[in-house]
Amino acid sequence: MTYSVAVSGASGYAGGEILRILAAHPDVEIRTVTAHSNAGQPLIRHQPHLRSLEHLTLSDTTSEVLAGHDIVFLALPHGQSGQYTDALGDTALVIDAGADHRLESVTDWEQFYGGNFHEPWVYGVPELVVAGAKQRERLIGASRIAAPGCNASTVSLSLAPGVAAGVIDPGDIVTVLAVGPSGAGKSLKTNLLASEILGSANPYAVGGTHRHIPEIRQALVAARATHAGAGVTGPDDGIRISFTPVLVPMARGILATSTAPIVNDATDAEIRGAWEAAYGDETFVQLLPEGQFPRTADVLGANTALIGLAIDRAANRVVVVTAVDNLVKGTAGAAVQSMNIALGLAEGTGLTVNGVAP
Amino acid sequence: MTYSVAVSGASGYAGGEILRILAAHPDVEIRTVTAHSNAGQPLIRHQPHLRSLEHLTLSDTTSEVLAGHDIVFLALPHGQSGQYTDALGDTALVIDAGADHRLESVTDWEQFYGGNFHEPWVYGVPELVVAGAKQRERLIGASRIAAPGCNASTVSLSLAPGVAAGVIDPGDIVTVLAVGPSGAGKSLKTNLLASEILGSANPYAVGGTHRHIPEIRQALVAARATHAGAGVTGPDDGIRISFTPVLVPMARGILATSTAPIVNDATDAEIRGAWEAAYGDETFVQLLPEGQFPRTADVLGANTALIGLAIDRAANRVVVVTAVDNLVKGTAGAAVQSMNIALGLAEGTGLTVNGVAP
Amino acid sequence: MTYSVAVSGASGYAGGEILRILAAHPDVEIRTVTAHSNAGQPLIRHQPHLRSLEHLTLSDTTSEVLAGHDIVFLALPHGQSGQYTDALGDTALVIDAGADHRLESVTDWEQFYGGNFHEPWVYGVPELVVAGAKQRERLIGASRIAAPGCNASTVSLSLAPGVAAGVIDPGDIVTVLAVGPSGAGKSLKTNLLASEILGSANPYAVGGTHRHIPEIRQALVAARATHAGAGVTGPDDGIRISFTPVLVPMARGILATSTAPIVNDATDAEIRGAWEAAYGDETFVQLLPEGQFPRTADVLGANTALIGLAIDRAANRVVVVTAVDNLVKGTAGAAVQSMNIALGLAEGTGLTVNGVAP
Amino acid sequence: MTYSVAVSGASGYAGGEILRILAAHPDVEIRTVTAHSNAGQPLIRHQPHLRSLEHLTLSDTTSEVLAGHDIVFLALPHGQSGQYTDALGDTALVIDAGADHRLESVTDWEQFYGGNFHEPWVYGVPELVVAGAKQRERLIGASRIAAPGCNASTVSLSLAPGVAAGVIDPGDIVTVLAVGPSGAGKSLKTNLLASEILGSANPYAVGGTHRHIPEIRQALVAARATHAGAGVTGPDDGIRISFTPVLVPMARGILATSTAPIVNDATDAEIRGAWEAAYGDETFVQLLPEGQFPRTADVLGANTALIGLAIDRAANRVVVVTAVDNLVKGTAGAAVQSMNIALGLAEGTGLTVNGVAP
Repeated sequence: MTYSVAVSGASGYAGGEILRILAAHPDVEIRTVTAHSNAGQPLIRHQPHLRSLEHLTLSDTTSEVLAGHDIVFLALPHGQSGQYTDALGDTALVIDAGADHRLESVTDWEQFYGGNFHEPWVYGVPELVVAGAKQRERLIGASRIAAPGCNASTVSLSLAPGVAAGVIDPGDIVTVLAVGPSGAGKSLKTNLLASEILGSANPYAVGGTHRHIPEIRQALVAARATHAGAGVTGPDDGIRISFTPVLVPMARGILATSTAPIVNDATDAEIRGAWEAAYGDETFVQLLPEGQFPRTADVLGANTALIGLAIDRAANRVVVVTAVDNLVKGTAGAAVQSMNIALGLAEGTGLTVNGVAP
Repeated sequence: MTYSVAVSGASGYAGGEILRILAAHPDVEIRTVTAHSNAGQPLIRHQPHLRSLEHLTLSDTTSEVLAGHDIVFLALPHGQSGQYTDALGDTALVIDAGADHRLESVTDWEQFYGGNFHEPWVYGVPELVVAGAKQRERLIGASRIAAPGCNASTVSLSLAPGVAAGVIDPGDIVTVLAVGPSGAGKSLKTNLLASEILGSANPYAVGGTHRHIPEIRQALVAARATHAGAGVTGPDDGIRISFTPVLVPMARGILATSTAPIVNDATDAEIRGAWEAAYGDETFVQLLPEGQFPRTADVLGANTALIGLAIDRAANRVVVVTAVDNLVKGTAGAAVQSMNIALGLAEGTGLTVNGVAP
Repeated sequence: MTYSVAVSGASGYAGGEILRILAAHPDVEIRTVTAHSNAGQPLIRHQPHLRSLEHLTLSDTTSEVLAGHDIVFLALPHGQSGQYTDALGDTALVIDAGADHRLESVTDWEQFYGGNFHEPWVYGVPELVVAGAKQRERLIGASRIAAPGCNASTVSLSLAPGVAAGVIDPGDIVTVLAVGPSGAGKSLKTNLLASEILGSANPYAVGGTHRHIPEIRQALVAARATHAGAGVTGPDDGIRISFTPVLVPMARGILATSTAPIVNDATDAEIRGAWEAAYGDETFVQLLPEGQFPRTADVLGANTALIGLAIDRAANRVVVVTAVDNLVKGTAGAAVQSMNIALGLAEGTGLTVNGVAP
Repeated sequence: MTYSVAVSGASGYAGGEILRILAAHPDVEIRTVTAHSNAGQPLIRHQPHLRSLEHLTLSDTTSEVLAGHDIVFLALPHGQSGQYTDALGDTALVIDAGADHRLESVTDWEQFYGGNFHEPWVYGVPELVVAGAKQRERLIGASRIAAPGCNASTVSLSLAPGVAAGVIDPGDIVTVLAVGPSGAGKSLKTNLLASEILGSANPYAVGGTHRHIPEIRQALVAARATHAGAGVTGPDDGIRISFTPVLVPMARGILATSTAPIVNDATDAEIRGAWEAAYGDETFVQLLPEGQFPRTADVLGANTALIGLAIDRAANRVVVVTAVDNLVKGTAGAAVQSMNIALGLAEGTGLTVNGVAP
């Protein structure tokens, strides 16, 4: 069968990437694209790279317009999805690329986002190690899915295997991310102007304020539960993360360098073995051979997370370097992969492991 | 008086930047520029941006050519400077922009560089806190100066105040640097091609192998000596650094994100006060006001290190973000600033605090 | 059936892009990849973005290794393909991404390339207007195909419709191209280093020396033949092109701005009509609506040439701005599209019209 | 004496660059900086690279605030300067970096800008060949100066020598410019976002609509007057320019490729001689030796226009490639250089010929 699809926020970067991927997906028909201020305009005016969708016109984002589709993607600023999803009915598969349904902790939500808390949906990172299994299992048959924060899923995928195996200490994580500006969306802000970013590395959200921090904590609590019993995320969860993103002059991409202390006298084989066990059978999350580290160019346009692992005994830390395309594996690709799983399609349908490089 | 100057390695990036700065310096005359394979060619062919030096021709790099100048800058690959400096005599001021004379520990040299060890020269980072004083004092009247490694001095300046004040623990430092490729010089290597670096973030020397690590350890041992007694650098010095550089698509610049655990129940005021005390009177190393963080564009072409400081109580870490132009404050500017001090000139002569932005 | 394929020059940029496209092509099996100095190494070491081809190892490029495949792609420096193709036999489809078989004129070859002249093969730009038809017709059933020069095909596609219709004068063409460095390959040259190209626009081959000039002349002679009788290219062919490429800081892409005088009192409708007639039915060459002009980001990774057309009456010139991904529509995509036609497959198999943006 | 200076539009890119240059100028004191919506804020918040001006606060832009300074720089959107300048009095030197006082032709103004026409001021491009002399002479003692449009002065300087000497035909000029986005200012527009410009070449104002076209026509009419009698600019002035700017991913810089037909059987010596005669004695406009062409990196931060000249006999065109930093020689440097001339200071005071590269 062919599933009918609606994509809201279709004039933005996340919405555009969902459309780019779905345009090559054999099992869906993109029937409706919606926007707010751009409603009524041709989609191609805002996504001039999507030539195969030249025939589509942006509708207004309303519950009525979104209703009646088999699948609805929401690519809206946080706080906006609730008004639409209630009206969509249980038969539709709804995938939110925004933040509204990611967090399980009301405390975290209030501290990092504020406003009304929304119930958590199934988290759309299939390869995550959670409570002795993979997140994939929870996605089978799901009708409500929360696509991940791009930085959050990158760091969670980087460290979860080590946390689950008990070879690193999640109580003193340090992660620094080189990120492209497309993750911030098409917002008209001075700090996102090309003149500000070209030729410069610009830090932001320094000192523990980034909204993806509680999302990582939540994922690592779940990973830790595989060996330490179930836990809940919160100020006392024992997960501590120093998290610093740095905007660099590339449109897309995240290169996350994440480190954590080695614990329990873990041997090199035990450490490397943790990641091998977690990802050895995965298609879209790949551990590179020893001594190799990924570049973001290698995953541009691909749904792949590439992971390089170093064991620095002098510093007593594991160093995990992970490359992800923030718009694909970080957002739209994760959404479509989760969709495939939820619907029982082959998981990789419409997705590629090959990047566009150079 | 006007000092006569010779610059070796003048066709490379470090040599070119030394020349760019010296060309605007009122107290020197650039008399000689030297190179190896490019000897005999006009300098302008290799440094087409140095229009005011169009009249200079590259000589061969030999002791004879370098002799007889008041000041000699060496911008050569490590291991090459020794053959020239012995012949230069004590009256000349010799400043080595290479690594040969930076390290005090034979063990470190052998582990990270190899080959013959060379005696350490006075380290050319005037603002560094060392043993209750500033490195500046050691530079006065010096005749042999080792300009710093660009990444090393950036990280050392970032953390030395906190180490000296005893408010952070140098035993678990994590630093990740976004760096431009000019730091790697004009080497013809595939990984330095524009096609490889444009649009991509590329890690290298992951896992504790970068040669600037012992240089940072050495600086922090000296900083710690201000409150803990003198120490020597080495495997047992108690300094541990996880150090990961990431090449990003900007020609110049280092943005170092360095974190270390808060210790001794240090208050916010004590922590911030450590950096304020260290740099409050400095021109070229500036602590930004609370909540502000630097971009590399802000220091492009300038001799300024700009430092932003965050105290992340949730992660129990101080986060120091420092922006430096690797070729200026990281190399050539540090060399000229040190030269000014050694010669008794005004320290800022020929140097600027203002970056070229956007 | 599934066609067996060999790709030579597989460690370079053009070879890598052929592989990236073929990896998603349902009708081929990539059986062999070859290189020279890198023979014996895993392909993935040189093409780390091609995760689905991780199992392949580079063989040496020899006639023996290339023999026995249904299709052979040659991505070699010019002058090298001849030694292999003679031995390949007539049953194999051979597609040369190099320059050896593009030019029909011995004089042009000797002036712009030198060395032995090779017989011209069928030119692999299906949409080109030639002698009242499309180049596509000549590709049907071909067994030897010359993939185009990326800049050449971009400019030829830009202007051929106007020349064929007699509304512009090919005797005074001016074209200036913003190009990414990947078109120059992985050569280790100082001017291709990232430090040289980041933040800078660098012209090269200024003043009529670029090797793609005779290739454009040849295409426009063929286009003109549709209304003016057949012609041959050469110094007296009446085609004059001022051609200036400028390297800009993007890994891929060509944005060609091509202008030519309006002739024969052509009306706006006649001018626009020429391009509409030529490309109205094409999938991979698209004329944008009036007032719209393409960006290279819109075609990144896609096989699309997007064309914007302006009629500047004050300057009496037609201005054609065309965006192409040099590695796809400019090289590898053109090669695969031509392959599809030659083999009787659906022309767009394995190719996409949608770019990867932002 | 020290001149007191006020700079309006000080939070923008042009204003910031005027300040960067003036901060190093020995004969001026920056007393006042003004802005509109940012009034009341510290300058450093908007120009974080100008560390030496950290003490300045933005005042509101009013006639009262600007009055009483020896020199006033206006860096405002066009149409806004008139309200201030009338009130400034004749004793102040006023330099407008905006467009209001550049054009002599009311017709041109109305066609390309619209709104009230303002009287032309002395045009601030000292090296321009005009009516047998240099524009420099007109700047001596001037009290009202119009700084040039960055693209306009780049193209005018490129071609004026050939027009003045009668060796090229200004009736069929084609110029294509690779430009950085800083020329468009800090405007919050989607097409200026980093995500839109990184990795892409984006044309704009295609087909003869760019506002710098009449400014170039005016300069070339003046240049032609040196051999053909005085002329006026306008639709019948015989100057025809096809002008296409292309935004490329570099913050600053213009690389203009300008071509015009060779006329009057001009020999190579006559052609090259025209540019040599015009610029042989100039410091800030330099003709490169035969076969050499400039890169924008070579003039970054410098007040230099570097010109490469090719004579393409096959195309019967002269090709002039000129590199300029749009914010320096294109705007702020031209303004300060003109100021120096007007005040009788050494022309190069506070300006450099050396670029910041790589």
